[in-house]
Amino acid sequence: MKKVAAFGELMLRLNPDGYLRLTQASDLHMSFAGGEANAAVSISNFGTDTVFVTKLPDNDLGKMAVRELRKYGVNGDHIAWGGPRIGIYFVEKGASQRPSRVLYDRGGSSIALARREDFRWEEILEDCGWFHFTGITPALGGECPDICRDALRECKRRGITVSCDLNYRGKLWSRKEAGEVMEGLMEYVDVCIANESDAADVFGISAENSDIVTGELNREGYISVARQLQERFSLKAAAITLRKSFSASVNGWSAMIYTGQEAYFSPEYRVQLVDRVGGGDSFAGALIYAMNSGYGPQHAIDFAAAASCLKQTQEYDFNQATLEEVNSLMKGNASGRVQR
Amino acid sequence: MKKVAAFGELMLRLNPDGYLRLTQASDLHMSFAGGEANAAVSISNFGTDTVFVTKLPDNDLGKMAVRELRKYGVNGDHIAWGGPRIGIYFVEKGASQRPSRVLYDRGGSSIALARREDFRWEEILEDCGWFHFTGITPALGGECPDICRDALRECKRRGITVSCDLNYRGKLWSRKEAGEVMEGLMEYVDVCIANESDAADVFGISAENSDIVTGELNREGYISVARQLQERFSLKAAAITLRKSFSASVNGWSAMIYTGQEAYFSPEYRVQLVDRVGGGDSFAGALIYAMNSGYGPQHAIDFAAAASCLKQTQEYDFNQATLEEVNSLMKGNASGRVQR
Amino acid sequence: MKKVAAFGELMLRLNPDGYLRLTQASDLHMSFAGGEANAAVSISNFGTDTVFVTKLPDNDLGKMAVRELRKYGVNGDHIAWGGPRIGIYFVEKGASQRPSRVLYDRGGSSIALARREDFRWEEILEDCGWFHFTGITPALGGECPDICRDALRECKRRGITVSCDLNYRGKLWSRKEAGEVMEGLMEYVDVCIANESDAADVFGISAENSDIVTGELNREGYISVARQLQERFSLKAAAITLRKSFSASVNGWSAMIYTGQEAYFSPEYRVQLVDRVGGGDSFAGALIYAMNSGYGPQHAIDFAAAASCLKQTQEYDFNQATLEEVNSLMKGNASGRVQR
Amino acid sequence: MKKVAAFGELMLRLNPDGYLRLTQASDLHMSFAGGEANAAVSISNFGTDTVFVTKLPDNDLGKMAVRELRKYGVNGDHIAWGGPRIGIYFVEKGASQRPSRVLYDRGGSSIALARREDFRWEEILEDCGWFHFTGITPALGGECPDICRDALRECKRRGITVSCDLNYRGKLWSRKEAGEVMEGLMEYVDVCIANESDAADVFGISAENSDIVTGELNREGYISVARQLQERFSLKAAAITLRKSFSASVNGWSAMIYTGQEAYFSPEYRVQLVDRVGGGDSFAGALIYAMNSGYGPQHAIDFAAAASCLKQTQEYDFNQATLEEVNSLMKGNASGRVQR
Amino acid sequence: MKKVAAFGELMLRLNPDGYLRLTQASDLHMSFAGGEANAAVSISNFGTDTVFVTKLPDNDLGKMAVRELRKYGVNGDHIAWGGPRIGIYFVEKGASQRPSRVLYDRGGSSIALARREDFRWEEILEDCGWFHFTGITPALGGECPDICRDALRECKRRGITVSCDLNYRGKLWSRKEAGEVMEGLMEYVDVCIANESDAADVFGISAENSDIVTGELNREGYISVARQLQERFSLKAAAITLRKSFSASVNGWSAMIYTGQEAYFSPEYRVQLVDRVGGGDSFAGALIYAMNSGYGPQHAIDFAAAASCLKQTQEYDFNQATLEEVNSLMKGNASGRVQR
Amino acid sequence: MKKVAAFGELMLRLNPDGYLRLTQASDLHMSFAGGEANAAVSISNFGTDTVFVTKLPDNDLGKMAVRELRKYGVNGDHIAWGGPRIGIYFVEKGASQRPSRVLYDRGGSSIALARREDFRWEEILEDCGWFHFTGITPALGGECPDICRDALRECKRRGITVSCDLNYRGKLWSRKEAGEVMEGLMEYVDVCIANESDAADVFGISAENSDIVTGELNREGYISVARQLQERFSLKAAAITLRKSFSASVNGWSAMIYTGQEAYFSPEYRVQLVDRVGGGDSFAGALIYAMNSGYGPQHAIDFAAAASCLKQTQEYDFNQATLEEVNSLMKGNASGRVQR
Repeated sequence: MKKVAAFGELMLRLNPDGYLRLTQASDLHMSFAGGEANAAVSISNFGTDTVFVTKLPDNDLGKMAVRELRKYGVNGDHIAWGGPRIGIYFVEKGASQRPSRVLYDRGGSSIALARREDFRWEEILEDCGWFHFTGITPALGGECPDICRDALRECKRRGITVSCDLNYRGKLWSRKEAGEVMEGLMEYVDVCIANESDAADVFGISAENSDIVTGELNREGYISVARQLQERFSLKAAAITLRKSFSASVNGWSAMIYTGQEAYFSPEYRVQLVDRVGGGDSFAGALIYAMNSGYGPQHAIDFAAAASCLKQTQEYDFNQATLEEVNSLMKGNASGRVQR
Repeated sequence: MKKVAAFGELMLRLNPDGYLRLTQASDLHMSFAGGEANAAVSISNFGTDTVFVTKLPDNDLGKMAVRELRKYGVNGDHIAWGGPRIGIYFVEKGASQRPSRVLYDRGGSSIALARREDFRWEEILEDCGWFHFTGITPALGGECPDICRDALRECKRRGITVSCDLNYRGKLWSRKEAGEVMEGLMEYVDVCIANESDAADVFGISAENSDIVTGELNREGYISVARQLQERFSLKAAAITLRKSFSASVNGWSAMIYTGQEAYFSPEYRVQLVDRVGGGDSFAGALIYAMNSGYGPQHAIDFAAAASCLKQTQEYDFNQATLEEVNSLMKGNASGRVQR
Repeated sequence: MKKVAAFGELMLRLNPDGYLRLTQASDLHMSFAGGEANAAVSISNFGTDTVFVTKLPDNDLGKMAVRELRKYGVNGDHIAWGGPRIGIYFVEKGASQRPSRVLYDRGGSSIALARREDFRWEEILEDCGWFHFTGITPALGGECPDICRDALRECKRRGITVSCDLNYRGKLWSRKEAGEVMEGLMEYVDVCIANESDAADVFGISAENSDIVTGELNREGYISVARQLQERFSLKAAAITLRKSFSASVNGWSAMIYTGQEAYFSPEYRVQLVDRVGGGDSFAGALIYAMNSGYGPQHAIDFAAAASCLKQTQEYDFNQATLEEVNSLMKGNASGRVQR
Repeated sequence: MKKVAAFGELMLRLNPDGYLRLTQASDLHMSFAGGEANAAVSISNFGTDTVFVTKLPDNDLGKMAVRELRKYGVNGDHIAWGGPRIGIYFVEKGASQRPSRVLYDRGGSSIALARREDFRWEEILEDCGWFHFTGITPALGGECPDICRDALRECKRRGITVSCDLNYRGKLWSRKEAGEVMEGLMEYVDVCIANESDAADVFGISAENSDIVTGELNREGYISVARQLQERFSLKAAAITLRKSFSASVNGWSAMIYTGQEAYFSPEYRVQLVDRVGGGDSFAGALIYAMNSGYGPQHAIDFAAAASCLKQTQEYDFNQATLEEVNSLMKGNASGRVQR
Repeated sequence: MKKVAAFGELMLRLNPDGYLRLTQASDLHMSFAGGEANAAVSISNFGTDTVFVTKLPDNDLGKMAVRELRKYGVNGDHIAWGGPRIGIYFVEKGASQRPSRVLYDRGGSSIALARREDFRWEEILEDCGWFHFTGITPALGGECPDICRDALRECKRRGITVSCDLNYRGKLWSRKEAGEVMEGLMEYVDVCIANESDAADVFGISAENSDIVTGELNREGYISVARQLQERFSLKAAAITLRKSFSASVNGWSAMIYTGQEAYFSPEYRVQLVDRVGGGDSFAGALIYAMNSGYGPQHAIDFAAAASCLKQTQEYDFNQATLEEVNSLMKGNASGRVQR
Repeated sequence: MKKVAAFGELMLRLNPDGYLRLTQASDLHMSFAGGEANAAVSISNFGTDTVFVTKLPDNDLGKMAVRELRKYGVNGDHIAWGGPRIGIYFVEKGASQRPSRVLYDRGGSSIALARREDFRWEEILEDCGWFHFTGITPALGGECPDICRDALRECKRRGITVSCDLNYRGKLWSRKEAGEVMEGLMEYVDVCIANESDAADVFGISAENSDIVTGELNREGYISVARQLQERFSLKAAAITLRKSFSASVNGWSAMIYTGQEAYFSPEYRVQLVDRVGGGDSFAGALIYAMNSGYGPQHAIDFAAAASCLKQTQEYDFNQATLEEVNSLMKGNASGRVQR
């Protein structure tokens, strides 16, 4: 299994305890997270060497962020240091009819203001076999799209597999901007991960019979979206996560992967949510781990769906599930019996 | 939208964290609450000027109570100061087959011992368009029924709309006492809010086919109760909340309003309860806000049901839901998808 | 109602708050628990005099353990003091597809290293009418099986009723060891408590049509297991708990008792789990209380099932439910309506 | 060592964490305390059988109160049950120039409303050798002075030694009332405990050269007060605690006892206060333990001063110090070196 | 007493509990603070009507910030809403040789990016008699210096007394920038508050015999600084706080005021620090309250020094001390005796 | 600066919050610590590559322990995995006259039961320039003394500098055992670290005029002890820490180093203790960092004394102080002024 590199923002996450709303809180729990960082921690937890690249301010918060990565064995030696601040986001956990809410305070962060010269990709990507980023990173603006392109070109030069989780964020850029920038980066991408709304938001790719709010979408619809992505960008694989939002407390969760020939669906899990934030990132991380380890498509999608199901039964963004736990669920043990 | 005044007890609420029972607790969370105060905070949060009237002891707890109201923009300038103590209640959150429990320690409070001369209603009610109280306030005994009557007479003089949430509390008075006192106050009331057991407990008004413990009641039964209330007290409207207690963890929640001509039912929400205490009060507050804002009966009952559904997905008595959130749920968005 | 004595390990239980995994925790909640101690606390809470016997280290943790028992009125005067340490276990609460996990650190504890001369059973069992132990205690090894036998012989001499909860723990001994040791102790046992896997693990007694992982078992299967236990060991009664693990969040829970003539089944409760650890022990405690109080078999099994259902809606091992609460649920009030 | 009985109020104590002021708090820590209960816990902790008598409401808070006593081995079998409520007090810890503050909410408690027939002293005091109460108990009013007299008469009949800690509380009664009531009770008292202001407040007994605010008082002044107390009430001993309030963070602490022949002074401790509430009660408890154990006056006063010094280095009212710890400090080991 | 207006930044303050370092923290306590806001809360707590003006983002954090002000009775009706974010700062409490540390994340805040047209000073300052700002506000850059000047000109037009706390922040601007901008604003200032290093940093005004690190400065030195400030800017009064940093745990604290004729010194308090952040702001608030209430200079400086001494014995920036408490300390009662 | 390796136990540390005694606690904070691990974290924090070697159980607690090391950049790749358990200790923080207490539960740990073949020293020590252990490690018994000898022989072979902190623990072995085992290991030691009682306990080396309880020792006494150590074991340097226990709240702290020619004393710090546990280990870590970096003896001892002074102003065992902070204190800035 070759080393995996990931590039993106690493943020301070602050959330009140339990179901408290932000406006009721007097205390906030600190953790660190970010789309690519969440994936990197998952990959490292499963046992593959992982490198995470970002830019962090040279202060206590930056220091804590990198320490948190190191705790999980993720290599942070290529992080650039400097700039004004670490991005922050506040999470308020929903319940029943009340949605979870995320309040971002990420503007003007060190990574958003990073310069191309902050990253020496030739050095960073040495020995790597896989590179991962999400659509959030170019959306940060400034030189970020260029930095992504620098990294991707070096990946191409080295024959490194590239995965991208589209992860459209309407607060960061418009659909039009996203489409233009991402279009230019997709030529380097081998594996694209998305949910249905991502594909529609970024590339205008949609399927019939879908209703995002209720999460109802038939299998054919998903296959249609995946096929369009795969064909348009000559992907090795397109993977789509399928969330059914019954309420803020209970979701249906499954995923599919399309390889150009065939579509493979995972089982669907009915999840009593503990914290759904980071669910998609844990899917990406597990899928990368699985594909990088040579799992076949059905095995890989089953592994990734089980891993990300487990993430959503745990607090905070980082998936703590072990290989053993994911394998157990993947093999059908969902009874939740006490393990003594 | 004219200013709303509310009169009643403001108490210190103490509860252990999560699902801990009181007998297991080593720490208690402080908040402040009370039937009318909860409604007042809701009304103020939605944007209408609100005045809350009570009597509080001149100590740190009284000071904290009024600060908590002010925090939500509720005017506390007419609160009377003095007397021995603030009432306290302890809440223990139930789960599944185990009911939530409320332990009251409200005897001998400053408001229960208040005197008629503590409140200058002529001054307090200046500029107000709506006055709200619940059946708990006269149940406190002493001069409280008289103080209520003083307020109601001034309301009549000024043409202020009066709402009353029956809220029968068997720990405070007998059905007989309640019936006699409330009978005398109802002549001033325009909008009566109740659940089915309230109407039966206070006025002996009941409907066929009802079973309070299981919460099963057909539509006709509710209409029957509301019509009896409306006719007996010449009400502008009678509103009834409909709770189905499937368990301490999951309730069905809906409401209806009867205007003399017709009955309007809200949709029913299946609520994964976070904290159901204050649910009825948040219904009253939202209904008052809606009616005081000129909403039609269907709009008003839908708004009030949605608002009070959201309250029950949040901790503590005060409803933190915003106008925007209530409107979103009222329009059918109950999927609980993350709001980023 | 005659005094009840129980003998076994009393451990320090440490668990993170809420759904945090152990690897995410920075703080742990302390409580004290153990199979027999949990039962003893239940019995004492219901109002019967109870004595608990164990060996504890002469340090602050041992002192805290006995104080916790005394808090619930359990007599700890016959506890032996000395030895190196109190056993510890760490509990991580599961949710949905993620199972709860228990990490034991009980090796080398004072009770595991206790000597026969530490306990003067003639004195301890004076005035007792019932003695309870579980299969965990002989599984601790060393002189523990002999100490159990010492106690059981004194029980026989005095005509004390003996109950044993099989409670097989694969981490402590093999099926073979368990079978040999328990076989020798069962001759003294009057009431045997088990779940289906216990009977199979310890004595190779199984029923058809059972699937432990999914918890599916028909009534006949349970009766078959109970009958085999009853007949093989000439029991007065064999009681079996029936857990259906739908997930780590929701379980079905019921129980049956077989008296040699007939099988009595409790209703099945669908439990939204708060903390299922200690559920079986609270069943044993309630059953002992009921039988020791002279309840008939249907009454006893209904009482024990209701009590242990309530335990699982509460945190930590000790059941806080009162007689009144158990009786209320047993009579069918499972609506979870607020008790004011 | 004969059994000790104590009679008085047992209250719920609520305090914010650390140095938070009550008005800043969102959470409160629960403990249980009271002048005589604090003493009783100390005595029981040191190893003497202790009985505590009070009246508690028959609710969860009453149940928790008695459980807390039982935890420390104090017998609560003679507690009367019933009445409206348990008294509550709120403690806010001071620092430096900011004083600690205690907010009482004790009016209308079950003990304050108790009736003489609630307590069967003949039965309660069987086997007891010492009876303790404080001036707070008669100050609660109602029948409390009479109940005290009932107890004291039974003590006289049985030859039980009686101790009284004057503990004047200006919030509960005037100096005049206190003087009249206490005068009548002192005839039964053998050992009187006071601080200088108590003696002055209750009996108008004062010494020259004293300044309560700064705590400056010469030895002769204290001896003078003690001698007046001893002579006026024919005491076996009068003990006085000497607090020098340098600030809310640092106090000087010592004590003296006068036996009619001679005055014995303890060393003075300079205490970095952790929580000074309950300091005087822990002195009383330790003194009673010491005298009841037959310590001579110098030994007894040294023991009591050391024990109560240690109490003030610990949180909450109950002194957790062990016999061994008190003896170590009494022998001069005040270096605070880590005990491994 | 005329209404007081204050203008400046209102920030989210986050700090770990107790003496934990930021890098050790897993949770942070939320409060809201800012130089002028801290002063405003003090003034309002003492009983004078107070208006606070700032710009806050239209999100939950902005809403919480204004609610916190309203809680203390401060009027927030003139706050401008909009812009990207609220400034944040992290506080780590020092002890002994380890200094407290403040980590600012205030760049790009709504107030720093505010526009002159956001504030209608003619309306805001109606009925006001005093206006307060600090040197931090112009230091935020952008249009902030101009907004200050707009406010000050309106003050001049209306004859409103203006106070300015120099509060030099080297992280925000250079000494040169500060000098130039503040020079231009000082012509409107009547009362200047500073510590010695402020005067030197901003205006190059220094005294002999001073050593900032050890805090040693003789009386003449302070008078010299105050006189230079007073003369250069034709002040009504110049007030200087005198902190002696013995360690991060213990400080000496006093203050002086110079009125052009004479210098008045407060007593010096030796403070065991609970949280010294906000100490200077509470001094400014108390001084403004005192001068606005017509206290003479000795009375005013004594009041302000006592109030700010008490602040430093309390957690967080807002001073919770009441008029009564400040008066008690001012009259010499620093013994810290428990107030019951 | 060459890589540093350290070998010893890594334990789970559990402590109640603040000044709570263990017997009062309901929650415990988790951290990880151990004599050599504490030193390793310090060295890594200062910037030198560090390897830590131990044996940990293959469970969540072992995983957390190594993650905690990795967080601080310490390499844990050579940790042996397996065995029954991680050692645990409970810390109770003292105050004033009440000493801190440490309750060990370390028996039967994975490291105490480790085998010589668990550690391949030839591989572990590659590239290392310094090796550190304490007297606690051989005191764990079993093969631990042999494992230490294996490591030390490999050090000798490679010319690696060896430091040993004597750290006598009377709970683990007798003075006689300690003396015999340590005597055999000292031949490999270059730098010995001790406090005066260590030298006396292990080797019977004492100085005149010393009194351990009060911490009074004159300079000559310390020099005498150091010289005896240096001469007897042909040390390059002997360093001694000098603690004066004024109370559990305030200690004097300084250190000296003797190089065979001369004795160098650090300044003495008067420390308001936050948590003194780990103070000596942080001294060892800082001294090793300094000597390994080529600091002269006066510089090294000053650096180590300042670093360990700062540790004692922080919670838990690991020193969070940065190079910059230590240098600032070492240069005399002990005023504790806020760093903004």
